Amino acid sequence: VLRRRFGTAAVLAPIVVGAIVAGGPWVVALILLVTARASYELARALTLPYPAAFGAGALPVLLAVPFGTTGILAGVMLGLPWALFWLAGYPEARTLRAMLALMLMATWVGAPLAHVYLIGDQTNAVEGVYLVLVAVAGPWVSDSGAYFAGVLFGRHPLFPSLSPKKTIEGSIGGIVLTTAVIAPLANLFLGLPLWTSALAGVVVSVVSQAGDLFESILKRLLGLKDLGRALPGHGGILDRIDSLLFTAPAVYYLYTLFLT
Amino acid sequence: VLRRRFGTAAVLAPIVVGAIVAGGPWVVALILLVTARASYELARALTLPYPAAFGAGALPVLLAVPFGTTGILAGVMLGLPWALFWLAGYPEARTLRAMLALMLMATWVGAPLAHVYLIGDQTNAVEGVYLVLVAVAGPWVSDSGAYFAGVLFGRHPLFPSLSPKKTIEGSIGGIVLTTAVIAPLANLFLGLPLWTSALAGVVVSVVSQAGDLFESILKRLLGLKDLGRALPGHGGILDRIDSLLFTAPAVYYLYTLFLT
Repeated sequence: VLRRRFGTAAVLAPIVVGAIVAGGPWVVALILLVTARASYELARALTLPYPAAFGAGALPVLLAVPFGTTGILAGVMLGLPWALFWLAGYPEARTLRAMLALMLMATWVGAPLAHVYLIGDQTNAVEGVYLVLVAVAGPWVSDSGAYFAGVLFGRHPLFPSLSPKKTIEGSIGGIVLTTAVIAPLANLFLGLPLWTSALAGVVVSVVSQAGDLFESILKRLLGLKDLGRALPGHGGILDRIDSLLFTAPAVYYLYTLFLT
Repeated sequence: VLRRRFGTAAVLAPIVVGAIVAGGPWVVALILLVTARASYELARALTLPYPAAFGAGALPVLLAVPFGTTGILAGVMLGLPWALFWLAGYPEARTLRAMLALMLMATWVGAPLAHVYLIGDQTNAVEGVYLVLVAVAGPWVSDSGAYFAGVLFGRHPLFPSLSPKKTIEGSIGGIVLTTAVIAPLANLFLGLPLWTSALAGVVVSVVSQAGDLFESILKRLLGLKDLGRALPGHGGILDRIDSLLFTAPAVYYLYTLFLT
Protein backbone atom coordinates (compact mmCIF):
# COMPACT_ATOMS: atom_id res chain seq x y z
CA VAL A 1 0.00 0.00 0.00
CA LEU A 2 2.72 2.46 0.96
CA ARG A 3 4.94 1.76 -2.04
CA ARG A 4 1.99 2.05 -4.43
CA ARG A 5 1.08 5.29 -2.75
CA PHE A 6 4.57 6.73 -3.29
CA GLY A 7 4.41 5.84 -6.98
CA THR A 8 1.06 7.51 -7.50
CA ALA A 9 2.18 10.52 -5.51
CA ALA A 10 5.11 11.05 -7.91
CA VAL A 11 2.72 11.14 -10.87
CA LEU A 12 -0.11 13.12 -9.30
CA ALA A 13 1.91 15.52 -7.19
CA PRO A 14 2.81 17.93 -10.05
CA ILE A 15 -0.84 18.17 -11.18
CA VAL A 16 -2.13 18.64 -7.66
CA VAL A 17 0.53 21.16 -6.71
CA GLY A 18 -0.03 23.03 -9.99
CA ALA A 19 -3.77 23.38 -9.34
CA ILE A 20 -3.08 24.49 -5.77
CA VAL A 21 -0.66 27.18 -6.85
CA ALA A 22 -3.03 28.31 -9.64
CA GLY A 23 -5.67 28.51 -6.90
CA GLY A 24 -9.41 29.35 -6.76
CA PRO A 25 -11.37 27.79 -9.64
CA TRP A 26 -8.60 25.26 -10.39
CA VAL A 27 -8.76 23.93 -6.87
CA VAL A 28 -12.58 23.67 -7.10
CA ALA A 29 -12.32 21.86 -10.45
CA LEU A 30 -9.77 19.42 -9.04
CA ILE A 31 -11.94 18.81 -5.96
CA LEU A 32 -14.99 18.14 -8.14
CA LEU A 33 -12.99 15.68 -10.27
CA VAL A 34 -11.88 13.85 -7.15
CA THR A 35 -15.47 13.90 -5.84
CA ALA A 36 -16.72 12.49 -9.15
CA ARG A 37 -14.25 9.61 -9.03
CA ALA A 38 -14.93 8.93 -5.33
CA SER A 39 -18.67 8.90 -6.09
CA TYR A 40 -18.08 6.32 -8.78
CA GLU A 41 -16.25 4.07 -6.35
CA LEU A 42 -18.70 4.40 -3.47
CA ALA A 43 -21.73 4.14 -5.76
CA ARG A 44 -20.39 0.93 -7.31
CA ALA A 45 -19.35 -0.53 -3.98
CA LEU A 46 -22.62 0.29 -2.23
CA THR A 47 -25.04 -0.01 -5.21
CA LEU A 48 -26.31 3.53 -5.32
CA PRO A 49 -27.15 5.40 -8.57
CA TYR A 50 -24.05 7.36 -9.56
CA PRO A 51 -25.70 10.82 -9.81
CA ALA A 52 -27.11 10.38 -6.31
CA ALA A 53 -23.62 9.85 -4.90
CA PHE A 54 -22.06 12.67 -6.91
CA GLY A 55 -24.76 15.18 -5.95
CA ALA A 56 -24.37 14.42 -2.25
CA GLY A 57 -20.62 15.02 -2.50
CA ALA A 58 -20.75 18.05 -4.80
CA LEU A 59 -23.34 20.08 -2.84
CA PRO A 60 -21.01 21.00 0.07
CA VAL A 61 -18.17 21.77 -2.37
CA LEU A 62 -20.24 24.07 -4.60
CA LEU A 63 -21.84 25.92 -1.68
CA ALA A 64 -18.45 26.42 -0.01
CA VAL A 65 -17.38 28.80 -2.77
CA PRO A 66 -19.91 31.58 -2.09
CA PHE A 67 -20.80 30.81 1.54
CA GLY A 68 -17.72 29.34 3.29
CA THR A 69 -18.27 27.01 6.24
CA THR A 70 -21.98 27.94 6.36
CA GLY A 71 -22.25 26.78 2.74
CA ILE A 72 -20.54 23.46 3.50
CA LEU A 73 -22.96 22.89 6.37
CA ALA A 74 -25.95 23.87 4.21
CA GLY A 75 -24.69 21.39 1.58
CA VAL A 76 -24.52 18.59 4.15
CA MET A 77 -28.02 19.48 5.39
CA LEU A 78 -29.37 19.53 1.82
CA GLY A 79 -27.94 16.01 1.50
CA LEU A 80 -30.87 14.74 3.60
CA PRO A 81 -33.71 15.83 1.25
CA TRP A 82 -31.40 14.81 -1.60
CA ALA A 83 -31.15 11.34 -0.07
CA LEU A 84 -34.93 11.30 0.39
CA PHE A 85 -35.44 12.11 -3.29
CA TRP A 86 -33.35 9.12 -4.38
CA LEU A 87 -34.56 6.70 -1.74
CA ALA A 88 -38.20 7.57 -2.48
CA GLY A 89 -37.83 7.52 -6.26
CA TYR A 90 -35.51 4.54 -6.72
CA PRO A 91 -36.72 1.54 -4.71
CA GLU A 92 -33.54 -0.35 -5.68
CA ALA A 93 -31.56 2.34 -3.81
CA ARG A 94 -33.65 1.82 -0.67
CA THR A 95 -31.01 -0.12 1.26
CA LEU A 96 -28.85 0.43 4.30
CA ARG A 97 -25.75 0.42 2.12
CA ALA A 98 -27.11 3.04 -0.28
CA MET A 99 -28.14 5.26 2.63
CA LEU A 100 -24.69 4.93 4.17
CA ALA A 101 -23.08 5.73 0.81
CA LEU A 102 -25.11 8.95 0.54
CA MET A 103 -24.14 10.06 4.04
CA LEU A 104 -20.50 9.17 3.49
CA MET A 105 -20.39 11.13 0.24
CA ALA A 106 -21.66 14.26 2.02
CA THR A 107 -19.87 14.01 5.36
CA TRP A 108 -16.75 11.98 4.71
CA VAL A 109 -15.94 13.03 1.10
CA GLY A 110 -17.66 16.27 0.01
CA ALA A 111 -17.47 18.31 3.21
CA PRO A 112 -13.80 17.54 3.99
CA LEU A 113 -12.74 18.23 0.38
CA ALA A 114 -14.65 21.53 0.51
CA HIS A 115 -12.37 22.52 3.40
CA VAL A 116 -9.41 22.24 1.00
CA TYR A 117 -10.92 25.09 -1.00
CA LEU A 118 -11.48 27.18 2.13
CA ILE A 119 -7.93 26.56 3.34
CA GLY A 120 -6.51 27.94 0.12
CA ASP A 121 -8.89 30.89 0.00
CA GLN A 122 -6.78 33.24 2.14
CA THR A 123 -6.15 36.92 1.51
CA ASN A 124 -2.44 36.08 1.74
CA ALA A 125 -1.92 33.81 -1.30
CA VAL A 126 1.40 32.33 -0.13
CA GLU A 127 -0.18 31.41 3.20
CA GLY A 128 -3.09 29.76 1.37
CA VAL A 129 -0.83 27.65 -0.86
CA TYR A 130 1.33 26.66 2.08
CA LEU A 131 -1.69 25.57 4.14
CA VAL A 132 -3.20 23.51 1.32
CA LEU A 133 0.15 21.81 0.81
CA VAL A 134 0.26 20.92 4.50
CA ALA A 135 -3.16 19.24 4.21
CA VAL A 136 -2.43 17.52 0.88
CA ALA A 137 1.28 16.64 1.21
CA GLY A 138 1.39 16.25 5.00
CA PRO A 139 0.00 12.71 4.69
CA TRP A 140 2.66 11.86 2.07
CA VAL A 141 5.36 12.94 4.52
CA SER A 142 3.67 11.10 7.38
CA ASP A 143 3.33 7.92 5.30
CA SER A 144 6.98 8.09 4.25
CA GLY A 145 8.14 8.47 7.82
CA ALA A 146 5.89 5.64 8.94
CA TYR A 147 7.04 3.40 6.09
CA PHE A 148 10.77 3.78 6.72
CA ALA A 149 10.50 3.76 10.51
CA GLY A 150 8.30 0.67 10.21
CA VAL A 151 10.79 -1.16 7.98
CA LEU A 152 13.77 -0.18 10.12
CA PHE A 153 12.41 -0.42 13.67
CA GLY A 154 8.90 -1.91 13.43
CA ARG A 155 8.33 -4.51 16.17
CA HIS A 156 5.06 -3.86 18.01
CA PRO A 157 1.81 -4.00 16.06
CA LEU A 158 -0.41 -0.92 16.42
CA PHE A 159 -3.88 -2.36 15.65
CA PRO A 160 -3.27 -6.07 14.97
CA SER A 161 -6.93 -6.83 14.29
CA LEU A 162 -7.46 -3.91 11.90
CA SER A 163 -4.22 -3.27 10.07
CA PRO A 164 -1.72 -6.09 10.63
CA LYS A 165 1.24 -4.34 8.97
CA LYS A 166 1.15 -1.11 10.96
CA THR A 167 3.52 -0.81 13.93
CA ILE A 168 3.80 1.57 16.85
CA GLU A 169 7.36 2.39 15.73
CA GLY A 170 6.10 3.27 12.25
CA SER A 171 3.40 5.50 13.65
CA ILE A 172 5.95 7.36 15.77
CA GLY A 173 8.26 7.66 12.76
CA GLY A 174 5.44 9.29 10.82
CA ILE A 175 4.84 11.80 13.58
CA VAL A 176 8.55 12.60 13.92
CA LEU A 177 9.15 13.13 10.17
CA THR A 178 5.97 15.19 9.72
CA THR A 179 6.89 17.43 12.63
CA ALA A 180 10.48 17.78 11.43
CA VAL A 181 9.26 18.88 7.98
CA ILE A 182 6.22 20.99 8.90
CA ALA A 183 7.43 22.80 12.01
CA PRO A 184 10.28 24.79 10.38
CA LEU A 185 8.07 25.63 7.37
CA ALA A 186 5.16 26.78 9.57
CA ASN A 187 7.61 28.87 11.52
CA LEU A 188 8.94 30.37 8.26
CA PHE A 189 5.70 30.86 6.24
CA LEU A 190 3.18 31.60 8.97
CA GLY A 191 5.43 33.14 11.58
CA LEU A 192 4.10 30.65 14.15
CA PRO A 193 6.15 30.11 17.32
CA LEU A 194 8.08 26.83 17.15
CA TRP A 195 6.01 25.00 19.77
CA THR A 196 2.76 25.75 17.92
CA SER A 197 4.42 24.69 14.66
CA ALA A 198 5.55 21.45 16.27
CA LEU A 199 2.04 20.83 17.61
CA ALA A 200 0.65 21.34 14.10
CA GLY A 201 3.09 18.73 12.76
CA VAL A 202 2.06 16.20 15.40
CA VAL A 203 -1.66 16.82 14.79
CA VAL A 204 -1.33 16.54 11.00
CA SER A 205 0.45 13.17 11.27
CA VAL A 206 -1.89 11.73 13.92
CA VAL A 207 -4.97 12.86 12.01
CA SER A 208 -3.51 11.58 8.74
CA GLN A 209 -2.99 8.13 10.27
CA ALA A 210 -6.51 8.25 11.73
CA GLY A 211 -7.96 8.98 8.28
CA ASP A 212 -6.13 5.97 6.86
CA LEU A 213 -7.43 3.76 9.67
CA PHE A 214 -10.96 5.08 9.23
CA GLU A 215 -10.98 3.96 5.61
CA SER A 216 -9.58 0.53 6.59
CA ILE A 217 -12.40 0.04 9.08
CA LEU A 218 -14.94 1.22 6.53
CA LYS A 219 -13.72 -1.23 3.89
CA ARG A 220 -13.87 -3.99 6.46
CA LEU A 221 -17.41 -3.00 7.45
CA LEU A 222 -18.50 -3.05 3.82
CA GLY A 223 -16.75 -6.32 3.17
CA LEU A 224 -14.56 -4.81 0.44
CA LYS A 225 -10.89 -5.49 -0.06
CA ASP A 226 -10.36 -2.43 -2.19
CA LEU A 227 -12.90 0.25 -2.96
CA GLY A 228 -10.96 1.06 -6.13
CA ARG A 229 -11.40 -2.36 -7.75
CA ALA A 230 -14.21 -0.78 -9.77
CA LEU A 231 -11.72 0.14 -12.51
CA PRO A 232 -9.29 -2.73 -13.16
CA GLY A 233 -5.63 -1.76 -13.03
CA HIS A 234 -6.33 1.44 -11.14
CA GLY A 235 -6.12 1.87 -7.41
CA GLY A 236 -9.01 3.57 -5.71
CA ILE A 237 -9.00 7.32 -5.25
CA LEU A 238 -10.49 6.85 -1.79
CA ASP A 239 -7.32 4.97 -0.85
CA ARG A 240 -5.33 8.00 -2.02
CA ILE A 241 -7.35 10.67 -0.24
CA ASP A 242 -8.31 8.85 2.95
CA SER A 243 -5.78 10.85 4.99
CA LEU A 244 -6.60 14.16 3.27
CA LEU A 245 -10.25 13.73 4.28
CA PHE A 246 -9.08 14.02 7.89
CA THR A 247 -6.16 16.48 7.53
CA ALA A 248 -8.14 19.10 5.54
CA PRO A 249 -10.69 19.92 8.27
CA ALA A 250 -7.95 19.63 10.92
CA VAL A 251 -5.70 22.14 9.14
CA TYR A 252 -8.63 24.49 8.52
CA TYR A 253 -9.77 24.57 12.14
CA LEU A 254 -6.22 24.71 13.55
CA TYR A 255 -5.55 27.69 11.31
CA THR A 256 -8.84 29.35 12.23
CA LEU A 257 -8.23 28.87 15.96
CA PHE A 258 -4.58 29.90 16.06
CA LEU A 259 -4.20 32.45 13.30
CA THR A 260 -7.40 34.37 12.64
CA VAL B 1 -49.93 8.78 14.18
CA LEU B 2 -51.42 12.23 13.70
CA ARG B 3 -53.85 11.95 16.60
CA ARG B 4 -51.11 10.72 18.95
CA ARG B 5 -48.98 13.59 17.77
CA PHE B 6 -51.66 16.14 18.63
CA GLY B 7 -51.99 14.67 22.14
CA THR B 8 -48.28 14.81 22.79
CA ALA B 9 -48.09 18.30 21.36
CA ALA B 10 -50.66 19.53 23.87
CA VAL B 11 -48.52 18.21 26.76
CA LEU B 12 -45.10 19.18 25.42
CA ALA B 13 -46.00 22.48 23.80
CA PRO B 14 -45.98 24.56 27.02
CA ILE B 15 -42.57 23.20 28.07
CA VAL B 16 -41.07 23.70 24.62
CA VAL B 17 -42.56 27.16 24.18
CA GLY B 18 -41.44 28.13 27.70
CA ALA B 19 -37.83 27.13 26.97
CA ILE B 20 -37.92 28.95 23.64
CA VAL B 21 -39.17 32.16 25.23
CA ALA B 22 -36.64 31.86 28.09
CA GLY B 23 -34.04 31.45 25.33
CA GLY B 24 -30.27 30.83 25.20
CA PRO B 25 -29.12 28.19 27.72
CA TRP B 26 -32.67 26.83 28.16
CA VAL B 27 -32.91 26.10 24.46
CA VAL B 28 -29.50 24.39 24.53
CA ALA B 29 -30.53 22.32 27.56
CA LEU B 30 -33.77 21.26 25.86
CA ILE B 31 -31.89 20.39 22.64
CA LEU B 32 -29.40 18.28 24.60
CA LEU B 33 -32.25 16.46 26.38
CA VAL B 34 -33.86 15.70 23.02
CA THR B 35 -30.48 14.60 21.64
CA ALA B 36 -29.97 12.31 24.64
CA ARG B 37 -33.34 10.65 24.13
CA ALA B 38 -32.86 10.36 20.36
CA SER B 39 -29.43 8.77 20.99
CA TYR B 40 -31.06 6.23 23.24
CA GLU B 41 -33.53 5.26 20.55
CA LEU B 42 -31.03 5.09 17.69
CA ALA B 43 -28.40 3.33 19.81
CA ARG B 44 -30.92 0.66 20.86
CA ALA B 45 -32.33 0.26 17.37
CA LEU B 46 -28.92 0.04 15.68
CA THR B 47 -26.90 -1.60 18.49
CA LEU B 48 -24.38 1.11 19.14
CA PRO B 49 -23.00 1.97 22.61
CA TYR B 50 -25.16 4.77 23.99
CA PRO B 51 -22.33 7.26 24.74
CA ALA B 52 -21.08 6.89 21.17
CA ALA B 53 -24.46 7.96 19.80
CA PHE B 54 -24.89 10.79 22.29
CA GLY B 55 -21.41 12.20 21.66
CA ALA B 56 -21.95 12.26 17.90
CA GLY B 57 -25.19 14.20 18.36
CA ALA B 58 -23.99 16.53 21.12
CA LEU B 59 -20.77 17.71 19.41
CA PRO B 60 -22.48 19.91 16.77
CA VAL B 61 -24.88 21.29 19.39
CA LEU B 62 -22.17 22.25 21.88
CA LEU B 63 -19.90 23.79 19.24
CA ALA B 64 -22.80 25.80 17.78
CA VAL B 65 -22.96 27.93 20.93
CA PRO B 66 -19.55 29.61 20.62
CA PHE B 67 -18.90 29.15 16.88
CA GLY B 68 -22.26 29.25 15.03
CA THR B 69 -22.53 27.39 11.72
CA THR B 70 -18.75 26.86 11.64
CA GLY B 71 -19.06 25.12 15.01
CA ILE B 72 -21.87 22.86 13.79
CA LEU B 73 -19.76 21.88 10.78
CA ALA B 74 -16.69 21.31 12.98
CA GLY B 75 -18.89 19.10 15.21
CA VAL B 76 -20.02 17.03 12.24
CA MET B 77 -16.41 16.70 11.05
CA LEU B 78 -15.26 15.67 14.56
CA GLY B 79 -17.91 12.96 14.34
CA LEU B 80 -15.62 11.02 11.98
CA PRO B 81 -12.67 10.55 14.37
CA TRP B 82 -15.27 10.05 17.10
CA ALA B 83 -16.78 7.21 15.04
CA LEU B 84 -13.28 5.82 14.46
CA PHE B 85 -12.63 5.78 18.21
CA TRP B 86 -15.74 3.68 18.87
CA LEU B 87 -15.45 1.42 15.85
CA ALA B 88 -11.78 0.74 16.59
CA GLY B 89 -12.26 0.24 20.32
CA TYR B 90 -15.54 -1.68 20.38
CA PRO B 91 -15.52 -4.57 17.89
CA GLU B 92 -19.21 -5.22 18.63
CA ALA B 93 -19.94 -1.72 17.28
CA ARG B 94 -18.10 -2.50 14.04
CA THR B 95 -21.21 -2.96 11.91
CA LEU B 96 -22.90 -1.13 9.05
CA ARG B 97 -25.85 -0.32 11.30
CA ALA B 98 -23.68 1.17 14.05
CA MET B 99 -21.76 3.25 11.51
CA LEU B 100 -25.04 4.51 10.04
CA ALA B 101 -26.34 5.32 13.53
CA LEU B 102 -23.25 7.44 14.24
CA MET B 103 -23.61 9.37 11.00
CA LEU B 104 -27.34 9.87 11.51
CA MET B 105 -26.80 11.18 15.04
CA ALA B 106 -24.38 13.82 13.74
CA THR B 107 -26.02 14.82 10.45
CA TRP B 108 -29.70 14.04 10.89
CA VAL B 109 -30.16 14.73 14.63
CA GLY B 110 -27.37 16.85 16.18
CA ALA B 111 -26.67 19.30 13.34
CA PRO B 112 -30.34 20.11 12.57
CA LEU B 113 -31.16 20.58 16.27
CA ALA B 114 -28.14 22.87 16.62
CA HIS B 115 -29.79 25.09 13.99
CA VAL B 116 -32.71 25.58 16.41
CA TYR B 117 -30.30 27.30 18.79
CA LEU B 118 -28.89 29.49 16.01
CA ILE B 119 -32.37 30.45 14.83
CA GLY B 120 -33.26 31.73 18.29
CA ASP B 121 -29.94 33.50 18.80
CA GLN B 122 -30.94 36.79 17.13
CA THR B 123 -30.16 40.28 18.36
CA ASN B 124 -33.91 40.97 18.11
CA ALA B 125 -35.35 38.62 20.77
CA VAL B 126 -38.94 38.71 19.46
CA GLU B 127 -37.72 37.80 15.99
CA GLY B 128 -35.71 34.90 17.46
CA VAL B 129 -38.67 33.49 19.39
CA TYR B 130 -40.94 33.86 16.38
CA LEU B 131 -38.50 32.04 14.08
CA VAL B 132 -37.97 29.16 16.50
CA LEU B 133 -41.73 28.79 16.84
CA VAL B 134 -42.05 28.60 13.04
CA ALA B 135 -39.53 25.73 12.96
CA VAL B 136 -40.98 23.91 16.00
CA ALA B 137 -44.71 24.57 15.65
CA GLY B 138 -44.85 24.87 11.85
CA PRO B 139 -44.93 21.05 11.55
CA TRP B 140 -47.79 20.88 14.09
CA VAL B 141 -49.79 23.30 11.93
CA SER B 142 -48.86 21.42 8.76
CA ASP B 143 -49.80 18.06 10.30
CA SER B 144 -53.14 19.44 11.49
CA GLY B 145 -53.97 20.79 8.06
CA ALA B 146 -52.93 17.52 6.43
CA TYR B 147 -54.95 15.48 8.91
CA PHE B 148 -58.22 17.35 8.49
CA ALA B 149 -57.87 17.82 4.74
CA GLY B 150 -57.01 14.12 4.46
CA VAL B 151 -60.10 13.06 6.46
CA LEU B 152 -62.40 15.43 4.59
CA PHE B 153 -61.13 15.26 1.02
CA GLY B 154 -58.46 12.52 0.91
CA ARG B 155 -58.83 10.34 -2.20
CA HIS B 156 -55.51 10.00 -4.03
CA PRO B 157 -52.60 8.33 -2.24
CA LEU B 158 -49.36 10.36 -2.18
CA PHE B 159 -46.72 7.61 -1.76
CA PRO B 160 -48.71 4.36 -1.66
CA SER B 161 -45.62 2.15 -1.23
CA LEU B 162 -44.11 4.25 1.57
CA SER B 163 -46.91 5.77 3.58
CA PRO B 164 -50.29 4.24 2.67
CA LYS B 165 -52.42 6.69 4.67
CA LYS B 166 -51.04 9.93 3.21
CA THR B 167 -53.03 11.56 0.43
CA ILE B 168 -52.30 14.30 -2.07
CA GLU B 169 -55.32 16.22 -0.72
CA GLY B 170 -53.93 15.98 2.81
CA SER B 171 -50.54 17.22 1.69
CA ILE B 172 -52.12 20.21 -0.03
CA GLY B 173 -54.23 20.89 3.06
CA GLY B 174 -51.05 20.99 5.15
CA ILE B 175 -49.47 23.48 2.79
CA VAL B 176 -52.58 25.67 2.72
CA LEU B 177 -53.06 25.78 6.50
CA THR B 178 -49.35 26.39 7.19
CA THR B 179 -49.25 29.23 4.70
CA ALA B 180 -52.48 30.73 6.06
CA VAL B 181 -51.04 30.72 9.59
CA ILE B 182 -47.40 31.64 8.92
CA ALA B 183 -47.75 34.25 6.18
CA PRO B 184 -49.67 36.87 8.21
CA LEU B 185 -47.40 36.31 11.22
CA ALA B 186 -44.21 36.62 9.14
CA ASN B 187 -45.63 39.77 7.64
CA LEU B 188 -46.38 41.10 11.14
CA PHE B 189 -43.27 40.02 13.11
CA LEU B 190 -40.56 40.17 10.43
CA GLY B 191 -42.02 42.84 8.18
CA LEU B 192 -41.63 40.50 5.21
CA PRO B 193 -43.64 41.27 2.05
CA LEU B 194 -46.67 38.98 1.77
CA TRP B 195 -45.37 36.93 -1.16
CA THR B 196 -42.12 36.11 0.68
CA SER B 197 -44.16 35.25 3.77
CA ALA B 198 -46.38 32.96 1.69
CA LEU B 199 -43.32 31.30 0.15
CA ALA B 200 -41.96 30.69 3.67
CA GLY B 201 -45.24 29.01 4.64
CA VAL B 202 -45.15 26.71 1.61
CA VAL B 203 -41.50 25.79 2.18
CA VAL B 204 -42.04 25.05 5.90
CA SER B 205 -44.95 22.70 5.15
CA VAL B 206 -43.24 20.91 2.24
CA VAL B 207 -40.03 20.49 4.19
CA SER B 208 -41.96 19.33 7.26
CA GLN B 209 -43.71 16.64 5.22
CA ALA B 210 -40.36 15.66 3.69
CA GLY B 211 -38.86 15.21 7.16
CA ASP B 212 -41.72 12.94 8.13
CA LEU B 213 -41.28 10.87 4.97
CA PHE B 214 -37.52 10.67 5.51
CA GLU B 215 -38.06 9.07 8.90
CA SER B 216 -40.61 6.64 7.42
CA ILE B 217 -38.11 5.50 4.81
CA LEU B 218 -35.39 5.22 7.42
CA LYS B 219 -37.54 3.04 9.67
CA ARG B 220 -38.38 0.86 6.71
CA LEU B 221 -34.69 0.57 5.77
CA LEU B 222 -33.82 -0.45 9.30
CA GLY B 223 -36.71 -2.87 9.49
CA LEU B 224 -38.24 -1.10 12.50
CA LYS B 225 -41.91 -0.41 13.00
CA ASP B 226 -41.32 2.24 15.61
CA LEU B 227 -37.96 3.58 16.72
CA GLY B 228 -39.55 4.57 20.03
CA ARG B 229 -40.50 1.04 21.07
CA ALA B 230 -37.36 1.06 23.22
CA LEU B 231 -39.38 2.41 26.17
CA PRO B 232 -42.72 0.63 26.45
CA GLY B 233 -45.75 2.91 26.63
CA HIS B 234 -43.83 5.87 25.21
CA GLY B 235 -43.76 6.92 21.60
CA GLY B 236 -40.39 7.66 20.08
CA ILE B 237 -38.96 11.15 20.22
CA LEU B 238 -37.64 10.71 16.69
CA ASP B 239 -41.27 10.36 15.55
CA ARG B 240 -41.98 13.69 17.25
CA ILE B 241 -39.05 15.63 15.86
CA ASP B 242 -38.75 14.12 12.38
CA SER B 243 -40.26 17.22 10.77
CA LEU B 244 -38.31 19.65 12.97
CA LEU B 245 -35.07 18.03 11.79
CA PHE B 246 -35.91 19.32 8.31
CA THR B 247 -37.68 22.60 9.17
CA ALA B 248 -34.93 23.91 11.47
CA PRO B 249 -32.17 24.13 8.83
CA ALA B 250 -34.73 25.33 6.26
CA VAL B 251 -35.92 28.20 8.48
CA TYR B 252 -32.34 29.11 9.38
CA TYR B 253 -31.14 29.35 5.77
CA LEU B 254 -34.32 31.04 4.51
CA TYR B 255 -33.89 33.65 7.23
CA THR B 256 -30.19 34.07 6.48
CA LEU B 257 -30.81 34.46 2.74
CA PHE B 258 -33.80 36.81 2.92
CA LEU B 259 -33.29 38.83 6.07
CA THR B 260 -29.61 39.27 6.95
